[in-house]
Amino acid sequence: MKLKPNERIDQIYSQNVKIIQNPKMFAFSLDAVALSSFAKIPKNKKTRVVDLCAGNGVIGLLTQHQTNGMIIEIEIQPQLADMAKRSIEMNQLDSKIKVLNIDLKNTYQYIPKDSVDVVTCNPPYFKNLVTSKKNPNPYLAIARHEIKTNLESTVKIASGLLKMNGKAFFVYRPDRLSDILIIMRRHRMEPKQIRFVYPKEQKNANIVLIKAIKDGHADGLKILPPLFAYQGNHYSKEVRKMLYGK
Amino acid sequence: MKLKPNERIDQIYSQNVKIIQNPKMFAFSLDAVALSSFAKIPKNKKTRVVDLCAGNGVIGLLTQHQTNGMIIEIEIQPQLADMAKRSIEMNQLDSKIKVLNIDLKNTYQYIPKDSVDVVTCNPPYFKNLVTSKKNPNPYLAIARHEIKTNLESTVKIASGLLKMNGKAFFVYRPDRLSDILIIMRRHRMEPKQIRFVYPKEQKNANIVLIKAIKDGHADGLKILPPLFAYQGNHYSKEVRKMLYGK
Repeated sequence: MKLKPNERIDQIYSQNVKIIQNPKMFAFSLDAVALSSFAKIPKNKKTRVVDLCAGNGVIGLLTQHQTNGMIIEIEIQPQLADMAKRSIEMNQLDSKIKVLNIDLKNTYQYIPKDSVDVVTCNPPYFKNLVTSKKNPNPYLAIARHEIKTNLESTVKIASGLLKMNGKAFFVYRPDRLSDILIIMRRHRMEPKQIRFVYPKEQKNANIVLIKAIKDGHADGLKILPPLFAYQGNHYSKEVRKMLYGK
Repeated sequence: MKLKPNERIDQIYSQNVKIIQNPKMFAFSLDAVALSSFAKIPKNKKTRVVDLCAGNGVIGLLTQHQTNGMIIEIEIQPQLADMAKRSIEMNQLDSKIKVLNIDLKNTYQYIPKDSVDVVTCNPPYFKNLVTSKKNPNPYLAIARHEIKTNLESTVKIASGLLKMNGKAFFVYRPDRLSDILIIMRRHRMEPKQIRFVYPKEQKNANIVLIKAIKDGHADGLKILPPLFAYQGNHYSKEVRKMLYGK
């Protein structure tokens, strides 16, 4: 496997997969790992999964072991889609994970509406305001800010792709929790499970994980036990398990 | 102090107050204690506080020490309003806490709109569905189910009462979190702080505390550190402090 400038290969021990990272373009962090552990994907071979805003494909690599079905990763940035493709090859997962290097607004040209069982999504978190401080690096800016898409578009596409009772798993920022819950309900996506990730005890949450069901009943939302990233100066037991498998 | 049938007097050591309880009508539980600790009331003598759905007046008794201002408790059930009044007398807080035994839909006949600094509210939690299992005891049924009021009405009244930038503190059930966030935004109440209460570690949350600001900006929501009610078989340190002051 030939690497491009600034690229490196990281090993994710818990899943025994390797992933091409590029700190100048995209390197996954705890939110992707937490989302991959939170997302539940049916084992069945017929299962169809779409990962929106896939970046370097980390979510697909970290969830593929759950299913015998097919995962399609959608990523708009050619350089990131290319990293994702090469990581899939490197792990010999070509038959299971595909990459579509497209703008997600064109998704339905490639994947039929109402055909997908599970959508995972780690969307850009930050509003694209004139005043917002964006990363001068365009790759990172697009991955983090609502430049090429926004929350409402990703939720709407997720809802459009999903079969009735299909599941979506989103990771987002708690400071926009009201936004995402309101937007989900507007697009027939009922939040059914929420889990907050706290950097450590006695700190405010900095990540929120949301499971929504398309056309789900508007009651019975469960707030799962908190996940603490660190205990003291070390990863918590649960995060260690996500990363190292033990 | 003469007690009526089934009444008892409980001491709340943390605030050094006594409260008349009646398990057949209304006895406070952890949600009221947690809300009282979560609510922040300005010290200033001019502060005006309204407690909606006051029950036996527990929230007023547990928050009054924070302020030199005035607290008005609104309770529709005459028997509960009467318990609240007698508890206030017993604690010699008559000059500081008043009880209005009215239907909250008539609130503006007694308290002007846009005049209140802080609203606290422990509304009925459960939908009044034909199918819902209600307590056969009418006092408890009204306190718990949306029979005489509902979530949207309480949020709307809270918003109407509050000055611009006034604060509301609600306690509610996590399974209706989307509802309350959506309804708050519909009525100019922006959620700014949320804290979940978990019965113990590794359990789902069963109480949610929400601070909203009237006409607040739609960003910057903070998810505060989790509160665990129990640690092992004992109240957690934080709950012990709420109840016993140490």
